[in-house]
Amino acid sequence: MQTQPILEGNRLALSRLLTQVENDAPEGRSALAKLFPHTGRAHLIGVTGAPGTGKSSLVNQLTLHYRKAHQYKVAIIAVDPSSPFTGGAVLGDRVRMRDLSGDDGVFIRSMASRGSVGGLAQKTAAFVQVFDAAGYDIIIIETVGAGQSEVDIARLAHTTIVVEAPGLGDDIQAIKAGILEIADVLVINKADRPGVENTERALRSMLELAHPTKRIIHHHGRMMTLEAPVTDAPLWMPPILKTIATDGTGIPELAEAIARHKSHLHQSGDWASRDRARLRSELEAVLEEELMSRYLNGSHREAYEQALEKVIRREWSPYEAVRALLNGK
Amino acid sequence: MQTQPILEGNRLALSRLLTQVENDAPEGRSALAKLFPHTGRAHLIGVTGAPGTGKSSLVNQLTLHYRKAHQYKVAIIAVDPSSPFTGGAVLGDRVRMRDLSGDDGVFIRSMASRGSVGGLAQKTAAFVQVFDAAGYDIIIIETVGAGQSEVDIARLAHTTIVVEAPGLGDDIQAIKAGILEIADVLVINKADRPGVENTERALRSMLELAHPTKRIIHHHGRMMTLEAPVTDAPLWMPPILKTIATDGTGIPELAEAIARHKSHLHQSGDWASRDRARLRSELEAVLEEELMSRYLNGSHREAYEQALEKVIRREWSPYEAVRALLNGK
Repeated sequence: MQTQPILEGNRLALSRLLTQVENDAPEGRSALAKLFPHTGRAHLIGVTGAPGTGKSSLVNQLTLHYRKAHQYKVAIIAVDPSSPFTGGAVLGDRVRMRDLSGDDGVFIRSMASRGSVGGLAQKTAAFVQVFDAAGYDIIIIETVGAGQSEVDIARLAHTTIVVEAPGLGDDIQAIKAGILEIADVLVINKADRPGVENTERALRSMLELAHPTKRIIHHHGRMMTLEAPVTDAPLWMPPILKTIATDGTGIPELAEAIARHKSHLHQSGDWASRDRARLRSELEAVLEEELMSRYLNGSHREAYEQALEKVIRREWSPYEAVRALLNGK
Repeated sequence: MQTQPILEGNRLALSRLLTQVENDAPEGRSALAKLFPHTGRAHLIGVTGAPGTGKSSLVNQLTLHYRKAHQYKVAIIAVDPSSPFTGGAVLGDRVRMRDLSGDDGVFIRSMASRGSVGGLAQKTAAFVQVFDAAGYDIIIIETVGAGQSEVDIARLAHTTIVVEAPGLGDDIQAIKAGILEIADVLVINKADRPGVENTERALRSMLELAHPTKRIIHHHGRMMTLEAPVTDAPLWMPPILKTIATDGTGIPELAEAIARHKSHLHQSGDWASRDRARLRSELEAVLEEELMSRYLNGSHREAYEQALEKVIRREWSPYEAVRALLNGK
């Protein structure tokens, strides 16, 4: 596959390549390899939060702002738990198309969350590389939902925005706690609704609780392999912003907070360390998949199937089976 | 570690073993191997749904019902995105303890969703094995949230219950579509709230759309490796039930629907095929982890670190790096 049209921003070529990458076609892999040296420039922004917070409208408004105020090229990757029945045509998409279609500086692509989580994070990472190489200044990774997989995907980003809304029900408390540790910017959307003060107070007290250990916690989980964090770098305290995405209130302030976070990342050395952590986990994921596929497609297949039968008959536990397979017992 | 006390239902021994399994301690692994032949009897019930649907109260009420009406031993595994700040003490837990503590036939265990998703699903599977061997008749796996990771965890179950509630906001539509394909029983909780008819109508029309292809879709994703589905077995159409968990309305009917689904699984052969698919994916996960750990801890470590540096300098794409590593190029 020719990669020159991609580098020049040809939309049709871009669209074709994304499909090849999504289908894990060999042409996609070889194009990715050719494009990879051209990556590393885009600002990756993750947007996550519980259902009903109005994330999609917020992303639309932010994109419109970037287009009008800065003429940035913006790509949106919407990671979307659509089912095979609906074919991914969720309600938000129609609103999105109305607001943003017809602008050549915006590229929107949905990705269904069928299949394994690992696969999804890996494909999202590959999409990011394609848009980065194609010269998009801003790449927004929007995830519907607030589970661990969404958190993993948001962690691909340089700047993670967690969206809340007033009064979303009782176990929202738990979600907030789990997701706060990845937030660089907190947004209370639908800020014209009742209960906004309560939401803000709750977020603020959780943030203050989190503050002393913020830097350590930031490098948890998938980020555990991150090398030597810069210890005397300035601390980043996630700001809490209020927006009303439907009428654009608070959007310029949000763009401003994101820009400040970007400067902070560069000053503190975190831009480089996040880049490093992201590439390390991408490399690990590809290696893991390839090791497994070589094992199962090689001469071990029969032994593996026999081991599985023993597990099903409860003669071996899965751990015993793996030990026997790998030690050739 | 002695496994006899576990088989006899000693709660202290059980609690200790779960901690060892959670920490991936060697004693935990060896105990799991010894207990494994005693597994395969429990009915595994997954409960999932968006935040704010009242899943925890529903699980509590269902458990109380199982205790009173059937004297079943019930284990609850609450997979919970708690943060290091709160230490897992989420609001729902206190209510839960009030309702269910002091009953020796109930065991509740939370599991935090820190770290990788794969790890979480694997540990949940190991917890299930421990409770199964310890003679629990019913094991409820409750997940907070509705992301793909929660779906993967719910897929461990024989019977998956998807909980909805009236009027939870606009992108709930997308969640429903993604999650419908794994539902064996649909529950509209908080059925005394306005909007219940709309929720029911929406669910019903989506179900009808889904119906013709139900059996195939059921075997998607992690289930892809499932062997030859029984083709002329009776079809299961997921029932839609209405409950008010706070006062117990609809709970006996829910227990009844779950029992009917269990009979269906046995009659159709799906009990055995789900068991098989579950064990296959457990075996795959353990094998994948072990292959990776042997690779990285072996003589390849240095080459791996060098490859990573090349990726960070954008000289190699992650795919090129893996190819070079595994082909010894």
